[in-house]
Amino acid sequence: MNGSTDPIRRLVLELARLPGVGERSAARLAFHILKHSVSSDGPSLARDLAGALGRVADEVGMCASCHSFATAERCRICEDPHRDGRLLCVVEGVADVQAIEQSGAFGGRYYVLHGALAPLEGIGPEELKLDELVARVRAGNLDEVILATNTDVEGDTTALYLAGQLRPLGVRVTRLASGVPMGGELEYLDQATVSRALSERREV
Amino acid sequence: MNGSTDPIRRLVLELARLPGVGERSAARLAFHILKHSVSSDGPSLARDLAGALGRVADEVGMCASCHSFATAERCRICEDPHRDGRLLCVVEGVADVQAIEQSGAFGGRYYVLHGALAPLEGIGPEELKLDELVARVRAGNLDEVILATNTDVEGDTTALYLAGQLRPLGVRVTRLASGVPMGGELEYLDQATVSRALSERREV
Repeated sequence: MNGSTDPIRRLVLELARLPGVGERSAARLAFHILKHSVSSDGPSLARDLAGALGRVADEVGMCASCHSFATAERCRICEDPHRDGRLLCVVEGVADVQAIEQSGAFGGRYYVLHGALAPLEGIGPEELKLDELVARVRAGNLDEVILATNTDVEGDTTALYLAGQLRPLGVRVTRLASGVPMGGELEYLDQATVSRALSERREV
Repeated sequence: MNGSTDPIRRLVLELARLPGVGERSAARLAFHILKHSVSSDGPSLARDLAGALGRVADEVGMCASCHSFATAERCRICEDPHRDGRLLCVVEGVADVQAIEQSGAFGGRYYVLHGALAPLEGIGPEELKLDELVARVRAGNLDEVILATNTDVEGDTTALYLAGQLRPLGVRVTRLASGVPMGGELEYLDQATVSRALSERREV
């Protein structure tokens, strides 16, 4: 909470806390919001946004089971009896859950880490609640854990660490395939992706 | 106000009303806000933002004199006795006021149109309160009106229209100089700017 006495200045500072929003674009957003709030006609954008934010703050919490966002004790996916409870997909963020859901290719449940291992930034196994995940796998009832963390250094490190912890428990541990994206043209791909696609090539 | 029952979905829809924010980046912003609101530690970004928006909606109105944003009947610039009341700068938006203030090159007062003439979009002289501006100039006490609308079609049209209305009233009407921006390199400039800089060249 910023104590600036000028309400416009304070709004700019709060908006600048959003990712990818510098102080200049925060000012642009603030002026847009004001323009659609101060004028007499039409609904107030400031009040609509404030209302939506307030509702989110009031009603949304973390799912006790997968740590995704939920408006109840457990999220809709964890409550859905049609999902395959023997299949667990570990992701870094809730946006990843959405991306996988939209693919329509997964029918199991999720575990959201809200980050990836980054020891230099002080993000270790405790911050990501990895112990809770390991305990859940140890409790059984799981056939496979899919490690769907990102394919950057932190995501790979997290997957490697989790694989080391989970494999001894007798569960199948897999990682999302990585390589050439669908529709991807080789000449525009980065070296790391081409190299990975080569080293993980498979028989056709 | 959107009636979506899912608070996260509603927040995404409200955020997507911001300029330059598509539905995908709105979802990214919403997840960021949730991540920094739902977790136990630290202040809630959702509540801070909602508070700032609420304050703006409650406290900010339009200056009765220049139509800029103000937390009182008149804005600080209109209330400032040290500003030159005989010099009026007409701009399209409040962000333009800020840009000119930051240049430090202007000591007069402003008149904010909140737009520019765009007949095809239904923005005519009434929407921009141009009559009120003309009446103010007619009332006298002004030496010069600087037309600082943008140098695009709408801005130029607005300036041309206003010049036609104001010049007969005996006030000096000027337009911001346009040409090569400071630090600008000719080879990277668009044709229209080079052409304008040539046609408005001056003796050195």
